[in-house]
Parts: sequence; structure tokens; C-alpha cells
Amino acid sequence: MDTKQIPYKIYLEESEMPKEWYNVRADMAKKPAPLLNPVTKKPCTLDELSEIFCEELAKQELNETDRYIPIPQEIRDFYKMYRPSPLVRAYCLEEKLQTPAKIYYKFEGNNTSGSHKLNSAIAQAYYAKNQGLKGVTTETGAGQWGTALSMACSYLGLDCRVFMVKCSYEQKPFRKEVMRTYGAKVTPSPSEETEVGRMILKEHPGTSGSLGCAISEAVETAKNNEGYRYVLGSVMNQVLLHQTIIGLETKAALEKYGQKADIIVGCAGGGSNLGGLIAPFMGEQLRGENSYKFIAVEPASCPSLTRGKYAYDYCDTGRVCPLQKMYTLGSGFIPSSSHAGGLRYHGMSSVISELYDQGLIEARSVEQTEVFKAAVEFARVEGILPAPESSHAIKVAIDEAMKCKETGESKTIVIGLTGTGYFDMYAYGKYNDGVMSDYVPTDEEIDESLKNLPVID
Amino acid sequence: MDTKQIPYKIYLEESEMPKEWYNVRADMAKKPAPLLNPVTKKPCTLDELSEIFCEELAKQELNETDRYIPIPQEIRDFYKMYRPSPLVRAYCLEEKLQTPAKIYYKFEGNNTSGSHKLNSAIAQAYYAKNQGLKGVTTETGAGQWGTALSMACSYLGLDCRVFMVKCSYEQKPFRKEVMRTYGAKVTPSPSEETEVGRMILKEHPGTSGSLGCAISEAVETAKNNEGYRYVLGSVMNQVLLHQTIIGLETKAALEKYGQKADIIVGCAGGGSNLGGLIAPFMGEQLRGENSYKFIAVEPASCPSLTRGKYAYDYCDTGRVCPLQKMYTLGSGFIPSSSHAGGLRYHGMSSVISELYDQGLIEARSVEQTEVFKAAVEFARVEGILPAPESSHAIKVAIDEAMKCKETGESKTIVIGLTGTGYFDMYAYGKYNDGVMSDYVPTDEEIDESLKNLPVID
Repeated sequence: MDTKQIPYKIYLEESEMPKEWYNVRADMAKKPAPLLNPVTKKPCTLDELSEIFCEELAKQELNETDRYIPIPQEIRDFYKMYRPSPLVRAYCLEEKLQTPAKIYYKFEGNNTSGSHKLNSAIAQAYYAKNQGLKGVTTETGAGQWGTALSMACSYLGLDCRVFMVKCSYEQKPFRKEVMRTYGAKVTPSPSEETEVGRMILKEHPGTSGSLGCAISEAVETAKNNEGYRYVLGSVMNQVLLHQTIIGLETKAALEKYGQKADIIVGCAGGGSNLGGLIAPFMGEQLRGENSYKFIAVEPASCPSLTRGKYAYDYCDTGRVCPLQKMYTLGSGFIPSSSHAGGLRYHGMSSVISELYDQGLIEARSVEQTEVFKAAVEFARVEGILPAPESSHAIKVAIDEAMKCKETGESKTIVIGLTGTGYFDMYAYGKYNDGVMSDYVPTDEEIDESLKNLPVID
Repeated sequence: MDTKQIPYKIYLEESEMPKEWYNVRADMAKKPAPLLNPVTKKPCTLDELSEIFCEELAKQELNETDRYIPIPQEIRDFYKMYRPSPLVRAYCLEEKLQTPAKIYYKFEGNNTSGSHKLNSAIAQAYYAKNQGLKGVTTETGAGQWGTALSMACSYLGLDCRVFMVKCSYEQKPFRKEVMRTYGAKVTPSPSEETEVGRMILKEHPGTSGSLGCAISEAVETAKNNEGYRYVLGSVMNQVLLHQTIIGLETKAALEKYGQKADIIVGCAGGGSNLGGLIAPFMGEQLRGENSYKFIAVEPASCPSLTRGKYAYDYCDTGRVCPLQKMYTLGSGFIPSSSHAGGLRYHGMSSVISELYDQGLIEARSVEQTEVFKAAVEFARVEGILPAPESSHAIKVAIDEAMKCKETGESKTIVIGLTGTGYFDMYAYGKYNDGVMSDYVPTDEEIDESLKNLPVID
């Protein structure tokens, strides 16, 4: 094993924690395309966005110029409850792999939501509270986001209504129970509670739901209830902004020990964890100060970056949200029911999409059986049972570390370990029993789904 | 809120982590009574104990003289994977309660076993490996111990066989799945695999099992398999010794910021967490250097300290283990099936029992509905969903903090927060639905159970 001058876990001091989020769009020469009003097809104005989002969040959504945005003191105090998160040197994994690579992971799972989602949940709940709202609505798929938002709302005394994708609601009763413990109202989606839900149920009576549908239900509920706004856990610029706390802490922790990342790997569903992790490093690269290899890892069953189209698309099934230019599989795309965990959104953050289109990020897709294999290997040596989502990044990081073993290079690899798999044991059970299956959509399926993209002049 | 010169979370540096465990028996003028051979009723010899336990652990079990016992480097390296655990200042809870008390909790839940159990699991697995054994057997009730041991064995390449109390095996399928992910073989107890299991199943065909029965099955399996030894997660001196890492870190963290505990509260089932937490503080008190108020909190449904008898008793249902003098409810005592979580052992560590008998520890029993109420209150402000076991300590700590509010005293209260409740959502669900019930055994039930104590001349 190494001489270990670097500790297993690097914790920043409270005084070293970031006081500002970093807005990578300020450093992008070519900005992401603007959100469009779904009716007029013109760029959304602040007023239009403020009908859906809290005003401060709508401003953040549109802000392309301020490089740093101060984190309000109340949010920083909440962050202190579960942050700074550790940057862990994976000494044991390195030894197991017998690789000269240095592997680090930024571990965001040490809070009850079990993931990084709490970083944006508390910010969004804070601005909602500050605006005098009564409550917020949202959707949740795998459940981490709904849990995180429930925690933040409970802390601030806001009402929280969560539309949970029905198959997840049924397969993960304990996730729902955590949300209820934090006082949230959880409804399986599609539901009879909304017009869009009733419509979808009528068309597809046996449907097990989708994220796109749950989003539509949450937006409708926010619009129909005085004092409510819709908040969401990924994809949007504001969410990526809040998640930069991950990358800022990671960078500070590495610098504290004189280390420099060569490869930064994150899983990508909507893109918020990846975006938050890589943003400050990407900023350096955009400013010509440094260079890195960034890798986005997505499931082969929902391959928006690697097999999707870069185009304007609907963000939700009900088509009530603004249109976004992004890598997309079409808003009707639903990954195979055999797919475990999150990373099942049909599109991708517009920031990540634009950076990928500019060739600044690599993307890889991996099948879930090999992902769970990497997860178990990691769990057994590093003592953390990772979330299926995070394990996508682990899989590719191990691949990169094994390349180093071949070449003899001792590259520094940083993994975004977004969370724990404690509520994913059903999926782990399938893997343990050897009955987990992989599914890769055919070209025909993707082409069919992409037929319904909106026409933008 | 406070001025917060003390951070929310105090982490020791790796270099500040304890290098030795502390053996409180060395400072006790009157030692705990010795273990007795169940056949001869004479004190167990090292040779006799070494038939059940690894030799090094048998030595630790009998060691009453060495105040400090070095922690082998390999164990210290493993500890670095998930330790030091944070000592958290519960600023948010203090604010919620509007108490002048300063509340800290030592949080042991940031590892996949979800509790402090890993501290002893790795030590026991290490000594087993070092002795050239093939594997170990054990019992688990709520499941934390079995999970911890599975993790430790997987890390060291030891075979691990876990007998899991049947009702827990059925109610917590995901706990079982975590153990399987770490490669353990998990058998619901009582089982057809052992003689004692078959006997119990014949006598009580519908039984949902008990810890005492699972212990007997694990001991029998170890005895009948070459290269195996039995290991266990609480009660024994060796386990308390390993768990002193909790108290040593807590003390170092408090001292780092010039703080001194007034009240130290822990939950007590077999006593290992409580013993480990209070030991170094108790040592100071025994040596006349300092004084503290120690509170052991147990469930009203399994009240060994508050309503049991201090006597020699069997440690297991099959009566194959050594006899131990302890506070006990009788080895046939099984808490009501309505009781959630762990803390269901009929007896108590002999060290804790002796200290309690000497009046050095207070004990309180609490009913589970009020425990879950405290758990939810804590979760909503501190962001950690606590284990039902740990929540017993939270309940009493809140009581003590509220007394401070009445008297205006700003006492420093330290809670042993042993773990998370992520695998206990079934119980939280019952609480959320308002259908959780309390059960307090009658005097007649306890008297009846105590009739079968062994006769020692």
C-alpha cells in the first residue's frame, strides 16, 4: 500500500467551505441555448419563468454572466449539518486493482437523503420560503430527490408534495416512508389528482409511470395551488449551479494536498451531479488555466448523450414545461422496466449538452450488470455500498484505472460518488441472484421516439 | 443560534485517532464476576474459552489488568476507511428545544453496516484471520451486527455464516441482501441446520426465533466445523473493549475544543455501545480525576437493568455458552413481538452490570412510541434518521435538555448515536400511521422468566 501521506478521507474545515456557487456559463464562450416558451417558441422571460419557479431561482436560471453567486448564510448553515462531504482516497480499491492510478471519490451519501440531491433541495426550499410561499411540488423517480426535498421542507416548515413514479413507489415503499417521516405528501404518478394524470391513466390504464409524466403532474399542481411553486432535482441550470458545491469542495480538498485531477468521472442522468462536480474544473479549462479529461457515464438503456439527438425537446410528457435544447431520446422515451435505479430521464442538462457538443466532455454508456459488478467490487473493499447511479461512474473509473495498470501511468482519477444504495437492495438482490438483465434500445426504438420532437423555426 | 466557535462536526485528524483500546476493568476496584463453565460451574480458563473464541480474543476476554491494549495496524487501517466518526454539535436540536444545554452526538452510522458494530467486527475478523481460521459464525437480531461482520469478513477473505432471528429475516429482507452482497451465508433461525435449531423447531413449530436461540445455533455450527470460531457483537468484555474507540474519539474531540461532558447517554441492549462510549470517562471517574453522570437507556419492553436480577445466567437459549453474572430477565425472556429494532437481549454486559450495581451508572427505561417521537423530532432538525436503538438515547437526552431549560443550566450532554434507521422503515411506517403499540411486561411475566436461572453454589 501507499505511504499514505494523504489521509484516507480529506475533510475541509468549516472555514474552508465554499461561500459562493460557481456559474460555469459565465466562462462559456458559446452559451447553452435558451429555454423556449412552449406556446410562443420564443426565449422564456424572467416573468414567464417566475410563474413556475421562485423568482430568485428564475433569475439564477437565466444568469449567464455572474461567475460566482453568493450562497445565503442560512443555506451555508444547513450545509454545515451534513457537509463538507469527504473526498476519500480509495487506497483499498487501488490495492485491490494493483493499479498505479490514484483514485479519489467525493462521497455525497452521508446524509439521510442518501445523495447529493440535498445540496439543491435546501437551496430551492430556502428561496421558496423566502418568497413567502406555502409549499412546493415536485416529482421523484428513484426517490433521492423527493427525500432530499422532504428533508429541506421539513427543516424550513414548508409543505411538500411529491409525485413519485408509480413503479418506484411500489418497488421502494421504504423511500416513500422516509419522505412521510419528514412530513411530505407522496402520491404515486400518474394519479387521479391532476388533469394530466387522469388523461394519461385513461390512455394507458396499466402504466407504471415515468419521470416526464410525474413532472407534468407536479407542475400542474403548483399552478393550481395558491402559494405553491414547482421545484426540480436536476437538468436545470439552477440545479447545476447549487451542485457546484461538490466540485468546489473537491477542488479545494485536492489543492489542500497538492493534488491535481487528470480524469473526472461522474454518472449522468439529468446531469446535475456531473455538472456540479466538473464545473469548477471545466471553468479552469475554459479559461485556459488547466486541462482535464471529463467523462459522463450513462446507462446503455437510457443513452441520451451517446445515442440521442441535440435538439429542442419537451422536458415533460404533458408538454407544459419550457422547451430545452439538449441531447434527448424524445420526451416519450421510457427506459426498459428492467433498468434499476435513476438515470432514466430522456434528456440532459443544457449546460452538459452544450459542453459535450463542443467536445469538452466524453460520454460512455454502460450496461447495468457490469455496473453492479463494479458496485459490489467497490463495496467489498471500500466499505460503502454505492447507489446504482453512482456505480456507473465507478465502473468507468475502474476501467480507466486498469488502463493505467497497462500503461504504467499513475493518473489521478476523481469519481463523483453521488450516494448509497441502501434503498436499492431489490436491485442488488437481482444481481446477487444472477437474474439481472441488460437492455439496450434498438436504433428503431430511438428513431421512433425522436419522431415527436417539437418543430422550432 | 449560538456563536458557533465550535464547528457543527468535529473530526479528529487521522494522526489523532486512538492507537490503543482502553480496558476499563483495569481501573475497577471490584471487577465483574468471571465467566463460568456451564458444566463445571468453575471460572472459564483460557483454554476453555479458546475452544469457542479465537485465542487472542479469549485473552482479551480475561484480561483485567492491562489498562491499554494496542490496536493492530491492520485494524487501524480499516478504521481509517470509515473513522474517525464525527462528534456533532446538535445546534439545530438545541435551537428547536430552546435549551441552554449543549448537545453533542457521536455519530457511528456513516458506514454501510449503519452502526458502531463494525468497530468490533473488524477486530474479531482480524484475529480470526490471523489465527489461520477459515471462517466465523454469528447470530444477528436487528441485523447491524451481521452486516458489520459480513463487511469485515469480505474485506479479509473469511467465510461468514450468519444466523438471523427469523422474524427479523422476514421483516428486513434488505438487511439480509446487504449481507449477501458482502458474500455472507444468511440462515433464518431457528433452522434445520443445527441440532439445537431442530430441537427448538420441534418444541415450538411456529416460533419466530430469538437472539438466545440464534446464538446457540451459531456456537454449534462453529464447534462442528473445522477452522471456524464463533464471534459475537455485544455483551462480552472483548466487544466492549473494541468499542472504546467510540469513547476515546469522543473524549479527544471534546478536549480538542476545551469541552467537558456533564451527562453521557447511550442506549443499552447488550451494552457494547454504551460501554465503549462511557469507558474512558468512567475510567477518569474511577481514578478520581473527574465525574460524570452516565445514563443507560433501555426499552421498557426488555428492561434488564431496571427490572432484571443481578445473577449468573445463561447467555443463550441452548445453554452451551459460558454463564455470566449480569442483570438478566432470564434466558428464556423474549420481548413482545411489537418491539421494533434491537435492544432485545435478555441480559447485559457484565462490565455494565457491575458498574450499575456499584451505583456508577443510572438506568432508565422508555416506551417505543415516545422513542419514535423523539427520533422523528431529531431527524427533522438534524438531518439524520436515527436507528430505533439510538433513538432511546435521543429521547432521554431531550428529557435532560428540557430539564436544563427549566433550571437554566447549560450542561453538556453527549449522546451515543449508534446508527441510522434506513432498514427500519417498516417500524417508522407503523409510527407514521399511528399504529405503533407499547408493551411493558408484567411483574409476573418477569418473575416467571427468572425462575429458570441456573443454581450456582
